[in-house]
Amino acid sequence: MPALKLHPDRLFPAGTGTRNVARRLYSTIERLPIVSPHGHTDPRWFADDEPWSDASALFITPDHYVFRMLYSQGIPLEDLGIPRADGGPVETDARRIWRTFAANYHLFRGTPSRLWLDHAFATVFDIDRRLDATTADWYFDHINACLAKAEFRPRALFERFNIEVIATTESPLDQLGAHRKIRDSGWAGRVITAYRPDPVVDPEFPGFRDNVVRLGGLTGENTLRWSGYLNAHRIRRDYFKTMGATSTDHGHPTARTFSFDAAQCQRLLDRALDGSMTADEAEAFRGQMLTEMAQMSLDDGLVMQIHPGASRNHNPKLLREFGRDKGADIPTRTDYVRSLGPLLERVGNERGLTVILFTLDETTYARELAPLAGHYPALKLGPPWWFHDSVEGMQRYLGAVVETAGFYNTVGFNDDTRAFMSIPARHDVWRRIACRVLASAVLEHRLDEDEAFELAPELAYGLARKAYRL
Amino acid sequence: MPALKLHPDRLFPAGTGTRNVARRLYSTIERLPIVSPHGHTDPRWFADDEPWSDASALFITPDHYVFRMLYSQGIPLEDLGIPRADGGPVETDARRIWRTFAANYHLFRGTPSRLWLDHAFATVFDIDRRLDATTADWYFDHINACLAKAEFRPRALFERFNIEVIATTESPLDQLGAHRKIRDSGWAGRVITAYRPDPVVDPEFPGFRDNVVRLGGLTGENTLRWSGYLNAHRIRRDYFKTMGATSTDHGHPTARTFSFDAAQCQRLLDRALDGSMTADEAEAFRGQMLTEMAQMSLDDGLVMQIHPGASRNHNPKLLREFGRDKGADIPTRTDYVRSLGPLLERVGNERGLTVILFTLDETTYARELAPLAGHYPALKLGPPWWFHDSVEGMQRYLGAVVETAGFYNTVGFNDDTRAFMSIPARHDVWRRIACRVLASAVLEHRLDEDEAFELAPELAYGLARKAYRL
Amino acid sequence: MPALKLHPDRLFPAGTGTRNVARRLYSTIERLPIVSPHGHTDPRWFADDEPWSDASALFITPDHYVFRMLYSQGIPLEDLGIPRADGGPVETDARRIWRTFAANYHLFRGTPSRLWLDHAFATVFDIDRRLDATTADWYFDHINACLAKAEFRPRALFERFNIEVIATTESPLDQLGAHRKIRDSGWAGRVITAYRPDPVVDPEFPGFRDNVVRLGGLTGENTLRWSGYLNAHRIRRDYFKTMGATSTDHGHPTARTFSFDAAQCQRLLDRALDGSMTADEAEAFRGQMLTEMAQMSLDDGLVMQIHPGASRNHNPKLLREFGRDKGADIPTRTDYVRSLGPLLERVGNERGLTVILFTLDETTYARELAPLAGHYPALKLGPPWWFHDSVEGMQRYLGAVVETAGFYNTVGFNDDTRAFMSIPARHDVWRRIACRVLASAVLEHRLDEDEAFELAPELAYGLARKAYRL
Repeated sequence: MPALKLHPDRLFPAGTGTRNVARRLYSTIERLPIVSPHGHTDPRWFADDEPWSDASALFITPDHYVFRMLYSQGIPLEDLGIPRADGGPVETDARRIWRTFAANYHLFRGTPSRLWLDHAFATVFDIDRRLDATTADWYFDHINACLAKAEFRPRALFERFNIEVIATTESPLDQLGAHRKIRDSGWAGRVITAYRPDPVVDPEFPGFRDNVVRLGGLTGENTLRWSGYLNAHRIRRDYFKTMGATSTDHGHPTARTFSFDAAQCQRLLDRALDGSMTADEAEAFRGQMLTEMAQMSLDDGLVMQIHPGASRNHNPKLLREFGRDKGADIPTRTDYVRSLGPLLERVGNERGLTVILFTLDETTYARELAPLAGHYPALKLGPPWWFHDSVEGMQRYLGAVVETAGFYNTVGFNDDTRAFMSIPARHDVWRRIACRVLASAVLEHRLDEDEAFELAPELAYGLARKAYRL
Repeated sequence: MPALKLHPDRLFPAGTGTRNVARRLYSTIERLPIVSPHGHTDPRWFADDEPWSDASALFITPDHYVFRMLYSQGIPLEDLGIPRADGGPVETDARRIWRTFAANYHLFRGTPSRLWLDHAFATVFDIDRRLDATTADWYFDHINACLAKAEFRPRALFERFNIEVIATTESPLDQLGAHRKIRDSGWAGRVITAYRPDPVVDPEFPGFRDNVVRLGGLTGENTLRWSGYLNAHRIRRDYFKTMGATSTDHGHPTARTFSFDAAQCQRLLDRALDGSMTADEAEAFRGQMLTEMAQMSLDDGLVMQIHPGASRNHNPKLLREFGRDKGADIPTRTDYVRSLGPLLERVGNERGLTVILFTLDETTYARELAPLAGHYPALKLGPPWWFHDSVEGMQRYLGAVVETAGFYNTVGFNDDTRAFMSIPARHDVWRRIACRVLASAVLEHRLDEDEAFELAPELAYGLARKAYRL
Repeated sequence: MPALKLHPDRLFPAGTGTRNVARRLYSTIERLPIVSPHGHTDPRWFADDEPWSDASALFITPDHYVFRMLYSQGIPLEDLGIPRADGGPVETDARRIWRTFAANYHLFRGTPSRLWLDHAFATVFDIDRRLDATTADWYFDHINACLAKAEFRPRALFERFNIEVIATTESPLDQLGAHRKIRDSGWAGRVITAYRPDPVVDPEFPGFRDNVVRLGGLTGENTLRWSGYLNAHRIRRDYFKTMGATSTDHGHPTARTFSFDAAQCQRLLDRALDGSMTADEAEAFRGQMLTEMAQMSLDDGLVMQIHPGASRNHNPKLLREFGRDKGADIPTRTDYVRSLGPLLERVGNERGLTVILFTLDETTYARELAPLAGHYPALKLGPPWWFHDSVEGMQRYLGAVVETAGFYNTVGFNDDTRAFMSIPARHDVWRRIACRVLASAVLEHRLDEDEAFELAPELAYGLARKAYRL
């Protein structure tokens, strides 16, 4: 039976000299609290503090990284218990789902999912053997037995993970009841929200008109008029701030921004509401809203995040049969230089504003993002995102951006995950890779050793806290 | 006189720990048979088993990697014996051609051609000195003397190279006489064809209309009608299968696909045949045919390969004076996410289909190809192609795709060459780099050692056999 | 107080074996003269040989690498003494400017600027302590004291830097008085000019019409007519050759080229002159002029450089308030394959012509530039430019281009700088990285050791001299 053992030197380079410096750097940051300024965990976990039901419900069904890989190798989503949109039959036996996963665990070799899963198995569940078909049942029983215990409930794990603060992401239409419940509970865990307005700023979002009307209802503003619509955003942003929000998040297909006058904006809003909008106009509306949101951030101090460039729901059959977010979002080529022009012309020189840029198009790191962030006071660079939240992705990122933007125009790490168990693992990977890169710089005399020891905690902790105003 | 010596540790990393693991991994796969599922060797070599005439005809005249580099440094193609389209005079003295090559052998420093040539010199011809102006004549005489011997004929080398199976690539208009001759000869070497329909699916191919008419003649179908045209493809594909074909290959300028209805298809075919087609319509026709070919692959089980993105014959003067395939094909930026949409909507979720994607645009590895292959059951990723069939190219490829697609959505290696002598060298480079990458993963504790030993033969041999259904 | 000490092994890899070979290679090229075939130093420095006034005027105010980084972190350009376009108040106390810089020196960690500055501090000014807030005044006083000495004047430093030849860059409208003064002075330093015709070939350049008229005045040609306009260029190019020019330089937004007939060219010129030109026509005019300049280079032997792809003056507020070249030039995606078609069709096969291509879009190295340079006799690849003139950038460059284009289709190094103090540092970084890459190739048996010792001086010195005909 193959062992599962997390090596203390994992992800450090093989050469002795560099490895030794990496180790020493890592020892100073390994136990720093986790600052998770952007992600998609469910606040109800911490509000209700209910136990997770079983290993499959914890690790497979909600994790599109996991089931997309199994799907790519011919395993039907039904066999993994992913609910069908039509309510048709899917596997409901959690143990059988787990066995399918275990028997195919080799598919994850070389992927970050494998690192995160093994990390959770070993550190959260104290498991010492590798997952495969022969250990599947043992794993399933063992994890389930753990989950039944108090120390595996969400709040207990939150504390055990040493999370200083975690941000969730909610729609402006969300009443933030779970966040309120956490507050009212007296529990000390800091769970804050973030403002993610897709349902009311994207005319192509299902139910856009209804959403805008509801936004009016929530705020007492006439959201059918441009000024009322903007006011409603201001009101909801303020409300989000009362639930701890320090940031907004914007997940557009592109990074296009615009700067129309109020009359043009009203016309766009009219067309968005009456459903007659073209794709270009929808893009214009979203792009105008990025500029408006940047302006509001300048006014109310919320840090703005832009996550552009995913072609969402690329697989129409899967979307029809299983709905959104099933692993079929594919990155596309993304332009920043021209696209961000209008927004930057308006607020790029503002020292009081922070706009954090992310990308799924790594070619933009060195060519566009680092030069932009290395010039505009308002801009900072987010960490490697999604598919690039990985050992290779992090090294490519640091190799591509630091020389032009420096370390101090970056914002440390985001885990950006809905997989709660993966959070310590993801931060650990980032910390190890940061130490690896710093150690190489020291050994190559590109950085003095004392500077590396100053930078390591910034990358692991300080830069995120500062950039997100936490 | 500088020595030529293939170091047993070549291409392994310099660090002792990693090198030792790489060595041990390599020792388990070094002698695995060669599976060459895609390439452009000439089946007549194996049908006729005639000796190659001389060193220049073997290594220089047919290898556009070699003569394009010499040409780029100012050496006229005439001096290398490349035939002119107008039949004008070119160098015919093979020895003088060889001397020109030898005197400029330093130009290949750092290139894969150098690795392949040295490998062939050392392992096939047992040469122990480096090629340069001073050894040119000795080389020429030595190689020619070898070529005169029975054990240097194509079939003997095929066996000596330990080739389990090799695929050539033919047009639907090819009668596959050479393949039939190989079959009928009783020789045990497995040489199979692959279906490459450019001359009859690309309206911009010289002689397109005549080709389509000939396709009708070969199949008894009315290829001027869309349904007959498709039927004719089905008939030829079936015929290719009788000559061992397990795959098709499609070399389009882009990866655009379309899904028109039958009436639109007939209109496109009409315009393609009457020569009135615009460039956009030609693109539409080719793109429609990719979708049709995918559908046929689903029906008849042939694995589909897509090789998009080359700007062919970029140099008009060279095309005029020397014809096609003279080293002036230049890669271009290539989109997959939008382009493959129509094809994937139709067949992307089919578990019974295998579509293998290649690229000359490395930016698409991590951004587009790995996420697509890590989701769609029908998709797999081909190995690094052409200019990227190289030490650096392979490392970039594995670094960019494995984290997102895993190892098991890749298909091992293709040599994709018309240079028969380079085949063992190319597979050897791939095997060494695979071991290098796996060894690093082991030393960095990203992969267990037993897993690396399981993956090495898959990358060298198993994945190609499975993906190509060999 | 932290020490400043340039480690003799800096930028070499950490592994002992590779480092030893890198060291030995470097020892053979470390002291080779500097050939600086392209850059933006001011010829008046060498003509007048006046001392620099103070540390801030030497290191901060003229260096947009330095002040853009400080600006990106919220430091107003006024505080750094950058003159405002409206003549408004800015900091004039050089010591206070220096203190601001020193207190923020940590922002440059990991950037090439840091390496260059430390190199200049240590080797030119013999400084042994690191710059920070506590050493700011000491630095300022020490550097100023040095600058007052004869051995820190421009000509003395030129000699101390062991510069064999340096090219500056001038407009066709420049009378080259400084170059003439250098000649007439009898000083042995070789300072040559290069022909950079932006003001008279870019219809969007401020004052284009006046510039073209002045060009006519300078040459006695009717520059309002296409033939006279071309003749005027020929005349100025000849004049530049008398001041040592061996090259021209072209900094266009894209690499687009065109090949119109004379009537079309006259129409374009007419519209350019009457100011009615569209953006597309301006692009056409510039693109036509690239082709014309290539043709003139074929005739007069000047080496042609193309530096495309920067989005100049991306920040309109900064442009308004501080003018051009203030760190807001941002690279964009750049196409070469289609764009260079017309130029290459006309002169790409000319062995007597050298066109050197640069890029800010690293994705084009392996995909477009190396395949083009590895084929066309007229093309060569310039070194990594601007943001990529860096430790990581150089490694990515060599890793991406050498396998396809070889070493001999590259042209060694350009420093391309207006920061005179950084010249020895930049060449030193290139030499170290070249040795690092060569040493790795030797240790991995991709290159024989004697070949690496032959290539090192070529990369450091020989290739640049040859390519630029110096």
